[in-house]
Amino acid sequence: MSAPLIDKYRKMASFDWKKLKAVVEGEEHVRLKAEVVAKMKSEPIFHRDYRVLSREEQREVVHQRWKKIVEWGLFKDPYSDLENFKALTETLEAYDQGTSARLFLHGNVFGAAVKSMGTERHKELVEKIENNEIVGAFCLTEIGHGSNTAEVQTTATFDDGQLVFNCPSIGAIKCWAGNLSHSATHVVVYAQLHVGGKNEGLHGFVIQVRCPKTFQTFPGITIGDMGSKPGCWQGVENGWMEFKNHRAPLSALLNKGCDITPDGKYVTSFKSASEKQSVSLGTLSVGRLGIIAKGMMACTFASTIAIRYSVARRQFGPEKGAENEIPVLEYPLQQYRLFPYLSAAICIRIFQKTKCYRFVEKFTEYMMRVMVGEKSEELSEFSKEVHALSSGAKPVATWLGVESLGEARKACGGHGFLHMSRLNTLRDDNDPSQTFEGENFMILQQTSNILLGKVASIGLINTPMSTMTFLNSKPSKFSSWTSDPVNDALSAYRYLTYHLLQTTSSEANKLKQSGKNSFEVRNEIQVHRAVNLSIAYTEHTMIDWVQKFVEDVEDVTLKGVLQKVLNLFSLFLLERHLATLYITGYASGGKFGEELREKLRKAVADVKPESMALVDSIAPDDFILNSALGASDGKAYDHIMEEFRKYTNEQPRWVCDLAQFLQKRSQSSKL
Amino acid sequence: MSAPLIDKYRKMASFDWKKLKAVVEGEEHVRLKAEVVAKMKSEPIFHRDYRVLSREEQREVVHQRWKKIVEWGLFKDPYSDLENFKALTETLEAYDQGTSARLFLHGNVFGAAVKSMGTERHKELVEKIENNEIVGAFCLTEIGHGSNTAEVQTTATFDDGQLVFNCPSIGAIKCWAGNLSHSATHVVVYAQLHVGGKNEGLHGFVIQVRCPKTFQTFPGITIGDMGSKPGCWQGVENGWMEFKNHRAPLSALLNKGCDITPDGKYVTSFKSASEKQSVSLGTLSVGRLGIIAKGMMACTFASTIAIRYSVARRQFGPEKGAENEIPVLEYPLQQYRLFPYLSAAICIRIFQKTKCYRFVEKFTEYMMRVMVGEKSEELSEFSKEVHALSSGAKPVATWLGVESLGEARKACGGHGFLHMSRLNTLRDDNDPSQTFEGENFMILQQTSNILLGKVASIGLINTPMSTMTFLNSKPSKFSSWTSDPVNDALSAYRYLTYHLLQTTSSEANKLKQSGKNSFEVRNEIQVHRAVNLSIAYTEHTMIDWVQKFVEDVEDVTLKGVLQKVLNLFSLFLLERHLATLYITGYASGGKFGEELREKLRKAVADVKPESMALVDSIAPDDFILNSALGASDGKAYDHIMEEFRKYTNEQPRWVCDLAQFLQKRSQSSKL
Repeated sequence: MSAPLIDKYRKMASFDWKKLKAVVEGEEHVRLKAEVVAKMKSEPIFHRDYRVLSREEQREVVHQRWKKIVEWGLFKDPYSDLENFKALTETLEAYDQGTSARLFLHGNVFGAAVKSMGTERHKELVEKIENNEIVGAFCLTEIGHGSNTAEVQTTATFDDGQLVFNCPSIGAIKCWAGNLSHSATHVVVYAQLHVGGKNEGLHGFVIQVRCPKTFQTFPGITIGDMGSKPGCWQGVENGWMEFKNHRAPLSALLNKGCDITPDGKYVTSFKSASEKQSVSLGTLSVGRLGIIAKGMMACTFASTIAIRYSVARRQFGPEKGAENEIPVLEYPLQQYRLFPYLSAAICIRIFQKTKCYRFVEKFTEYMMRVMVGEKSEELSEFSKEVHALSSGAKPVATWLGVESLGEARKACGGHGFLHMSRLNTLRDDNDPSQTFEGENFMILQQTSNILLGKVASIGLINTPMSTMTFLNSKPSKFSSWTSDPVNDALSAYRYLTYHLLQTTSSEANKLKQSGKNSFEVRNEIQVHRAVNLSIAYTEHTMIDWVQKFVEDVEDVTLKGVLQKVLNLFSLFLLERHLATLYITGYASGGKFGEELREKLRKAVADVKPESMALVDSIAPDDFILNSALGASDGKAYDHIMEEFRKYTNEQPRWVCDLAQFLQKRSQSSKL
Repeated sequence: MSAPLIDKYRKMASFDWKKLKAVVEGEEHVRLKAEVVAKMKSEPIFHRDYRVLSREEQREVVHQRWKKIVEWGLFKDPYSDLENFKALTETLEAYDQGTSARLFLHGNVFGAAVKSMGTERHKELVEKIENNEIVGAFCLTEIGHGSNTAEVQTTATFDDGQLVFNCPSIGAIKCWAGNLSHSATHVVVYAQLHVGGKNEGLHGFVIQVRCPKTFQTFPGITIGDMGSKPGCWQGVENGWMEFKNHRAPLSALLNKGCDITPDGKYVTSFKSASEKQSVSLGTLSVGRLGIIAKGMMACTFASTIAIRYSVARRQFGPEKGAENEIPVLEYPLQQYRLFPYLSAAICIRIFQKTKCYRFVEKFTEYMMRVMVGEKSEELSEFSKEVHALSSGAKPVATWLGVESLGEARKACGGHGFLHMSRLNTLRDDNDPSQTFEGENFMILQQTSNILLGKVASIGLINTPMSTMTFLNSKPSKFSSWTSDPVNDALSAYRYLTYHLLQTTSSEANKLKQSGKNSFEVRNEIQVHRAVNLSIAYTEHTMIDWVQKFVEDVEDVTLKGVLQKVLNLFSLFLLERHLATLYITGYASGGKFGEELREKLRKAVADVKPESMALVDSIAPDDFILNSALGASDGKAYDHIMEEFRKYTNEQPRWVCDLAQFLQKRSQSSKL
């Protein structure tokens, strides 16, 4: 039985949320996810409550859950079974990112690295990886080097038919490797390869680090944990590893395209260092897609929990008396704070995952072509475009995600801060998505660099996914609003992107002419310019793709609802560029901005009657959601009190000490 | 011995940080804080490390620390000894907000409520409070009511010479009361007073809830804990309390200005319900000042940790090779992300605490006049102005604080996410400051309501602190930039505030004329209008007061440095209003915005050489700071590795289970 009030809000909607879910996620995906959830619900090890576990407890439980999933055989390779891969991924990511990390770091990061950089001689190892007979970790980052991977300091030196690994300084110690602290038997490690006194550059190696029986580390290897971390990451054993003359066989080298002969000669088929590096680090970009999804999931959680709670929470009203208080969802400001993230949850999913314009599929296609060794002009363009877009979408999505959780927490007031709301824990869980695979501002540079590289060919730009073709012609300034806010927003974005590209490029030229080197130039054009350029390009593409998806929806009712969602998403994002729109000269005069804000407020209001059903269409199962505030029955206070009552009359041992202390003070005051 | 690199940055500064600290904080304050720190360092119970404690452990340690501080007799009443009060407050708040909460909730919230609402008959109790013979909690908030205090549902009914307390529903259960779950012997509780069948409205009562020896609750009272919470608040025993026919003596009523005669007649000297409520809830506003300081401390921590770490962290460079990598502080984007919060840490402190324009003193003066019962037109104006400003400054400061910690965490990359960086823990610690004493957007309404009330008297506005007098004349539009960015910013803010006041007011009138009631009108003018109005007014006052402070600084060097800091703070805040400045017509054309951003980038660059010494001038002692990344010696990596090594070769018990599992999988694959 749901609370009457939440049902009232559900009935306001013009559509059936199950139908919308099927259209947005695909029926197959919805069904497969439900199967995974049902499996998890049936196993005690996946039991949910609101306890905070210690580092030790959390890791043990992650280990047990990982075992269960391995036993179930649910884990699939995205390249052979994308649908099942997506269903498991999304369910686990929503359940606990720590558990999913344990699986994916082994299979999709460590395993993928061995597969893509290894050769026939690593075949037996690959089988063991796929059969989970060993546990792998991926060791690239060092204490002193993250983004600048080319400069990692660990060395692998050819010596007497073997490879000798060393960390020449504190900064060269490997760190942040998940699965490493306690579990990994094997690792992929990146090191500078020295052969015959010459540094041949960064290479990947796979080595065994622990005895699979005793789990003792091998000679020359010290492994430890990185201590506590916030949120679910406490359950992930991120480790550090120091090498001191660790000797490994020559076969450790992941030798696709390069090798060392037994007599110590380095041979390579790569034409350049950068070509080698692109194979060696290419596997990293796959992860970026998963991180965009983390942003989407964060928006999903934030809006589900906060919007449902905003109906249970009643506060103030037109007349005095508690019976006249209205649900806080009725407040335009509350709607303005929450609905944009609801629209983001839906639109990022469509952008990234949904049929017809699915970025994940495009990306998978690209990776498969790379993996089979294709080399062509078109693939190289595809590569750049995929890279530009994923480097832009990852920051945009993860920033929105973390922001949404913060806003939702505040919009839920004090109770939002309770652990059982899950909002702050989720915020901690999602916080690192902003720095995974490169700090967001850092990887945004990759988008702007690619765009800036296109300036010379304006008029001739023709990329495989057509995300940059609009740059060929100079977009026109604002003339008037039409009845379609999405087209209006897209026009503004095209102008904005075009002009930011021009001004950023001319600023770069000016700096070059003034004698700055290219490193300085790149650094000095970031603030207000290259950063905004990358964001504008990305958001334009997102809105554009979602619009194309909505156009193709056949059901008129659902199309209408999605149109409202996209109207809000487009205007919400565009409003953030309002100052820059004025600066770039898209419009002048106060009226333009005032009207944009009016339209935004209207778009928020239009979503209101649909909001509760929209939430139902995106909300994970209550078991996965695990929030006392956000349960689908709308009975937040009952759930809160049910949990509160578990802590009735607690008397910690130190209460005796307190009683004695108070008595002593009372006695001494009477003296 | 500090790291050579951090020393190099220290030497870039044009000034002596100790002199600046003395000017900004006052020599006495600096000395008193150092004394508190020295005392704490000498006591093992205040020992620091990076362990994460469980809920139980954290509460026990807070209890022990609280006992020590009580024994030291360090806790002072702000009205009798403001300097010592400030020194202890600030030190404890920076050390652990959980420990300070335990002290202040008893003394400054529970105690202050008894003092301000009680009479002669509560004198003995007040002595016990001051002597810490009892522990108090403050019970206002209920499960279903926070901000709308007038509607709290707990009842106190006169019956046969006693008061009978009840919670008529789940929503009426008291909650969020700090010190309540385990420790409180007494509470101040707010309830609707029913006498002879009539509800006389909200009143405050003080009752004993537990036996001081056994700590068992009294009949009719159930108390429990609210479960886990993020950050340091895990260590605070926020409790809930349910009444079922709890009987208390009549003397429980805090009877200043009202009473019940023994034969059951309610008498009052208050003229109106609102007058009564203003006495009854007046004590709450004191807390707001403390919360502004939390925002300032958050900015202080964020900039100290991130700026120091940005010198230790080297990444990329104009040439390849790790030896050519430059400290990330050299990147203009990194500076742009961090320096504004450094300026905020300094400017909010000056606004709030420093001699000459100290808001805390003005506020204390106001509270003392209220407490002695003064009633005058001028005091009423003072009250409104204090209220408008504190209701604006609390959101502005706490939003900046939480934002600064998030930005600092990201700017520190992955290592910023380690628990030992303290950035995410601090973020969790400070998160609730945004909803304490009313959600930020909620209390911003109090500022805009007061400002909107002034529209009718434009031309005659004359408030005691002169923060609104500029509204008397219509400010002029932008004409040109001067050489003084602060004056330029103040002019823009005056225009902005004036115009937002006018447009918000006329929007409200339009809505009224269209038939909306005042409740609807107030709700509908918030987004983009009343909210921005409150923020603009507050930021104008902050900048104005800091400017006046800087003008009075005698030392030319220090004045110059503070001018740079204020330039940045002013332009940073103003830039956020750029779109609204265009909309309100302050300027038109792209050039204005482009120039504002240019000036902002320049202001950031100007702070760079001073930044490390500025950090030293605000940084808490390393013992208080407790961050591996932010230690004053600049040796972040040494501290990180020192901590890492504590977790070398950990073998959790479940590793045996893992070894068996892998073996089983290996065997079954061979079958």
